[in-house]
Amino acid sequence: MHAEEMAEEFPVTAENSDAWTAVTQLAELRLPGLVVTDSAGHPVSILPASQVVRILVPTYVQDDPSLAGVLSESMADRVADKLRGKTVQALLPDKTPELAVVNHDDTIVEVAAVMARLRCPLAAVMHGETMVGVITASRLLQLALTTPG
Amino acid sequence: MHAEEMAEEFPVTAENSDAWTAVTQLAELRLPGLVVTDSAGHPVSILPASQVVRILVPTYVQDDPSLAGVLSESMADRVADKLRGKTVQALLPDKTPELAVVNHDDTIVEVAAVMARLRCPLAAVMHGETMVGVITASRLLQLALTTPG
Repeated sequence: MHAEEMAEEFPVTAENSDAWTAVTQLAELRLPGLVVTDSAGHPVSILPASQVVRILVPTYVQDDPSLAGVLSESMADRVADKLRGKTVQALLPDKTPELAVVNHDDTIVEVAAVMARLRCPLAAVMHGETMVGVITASRLLQLALTTPG
Repeated sequence: MHAEEMAEEFPVTAENSDAWTAVTQLAELRLPGLVVTDSAGHPVSILPASQVVRILVPTYVQDDPSLAGVLSESMADRVADKLRGKTVQALLPDKTPELAVVNHDDTIVEVAAVMARLRCPLAAVMHGETMVGVITASRLLQLALTTPG
């Protein structure tokens, strides 16, 4: 079985697209992250939900976590304010995690080797310059355990 | 809203439980990871699917990735052989990622602060010594965006 057959559709967002839209998508679809592409559609990174939750924490609480308990929680408005006019790029961590990228004809073992090395929970599958889908780590395990010997 | 109200059920596995069962659970439920508890039921770590895929890669391929393409893929049998008699502990990475742990009465901001600091995609919610559920990062975003101001 080749990577292209294993790949599934997965939400992507461009670096220069609207931050609020991307965060809403993460929240509504309950996704652990989005694949981030450059303006040409090439996958470059992941925006993990565990990074995005940082926007829920006011700066003065990041500096002094003991202040978190005394906040009032008018969250949605505050988050919308904070994201207004920002792009997805502004949400990416300083040290962007490297995205696993595999070729359409890679095997299960090849995909697993790349994922394990980068400790990346998903791999973007490329056919030439085009991203044809994504393979998550759990999908790869599922395929590996059901591939006949 | 307090952490206990935000918490959801989430599969857990004990450090000393059977590795094959845990991997099968990850694969069948398509989970990004399992919460790992000690024998007393206290959450201690996460077993990420991105770590488990390492077992799909034979050692000589880890040493020389160029050999991955020439393997035959009798996966399920090979994985079962590799996991026989092993516990979940044997699958955990050497440098185990720290699990975010929050109290049942923590607020959205407090949970977000812990998750963001540890870059952990989920937080275990404790009521005293008992784990009452888990909050994923995307669940937290969902709640934050729908909590009235």
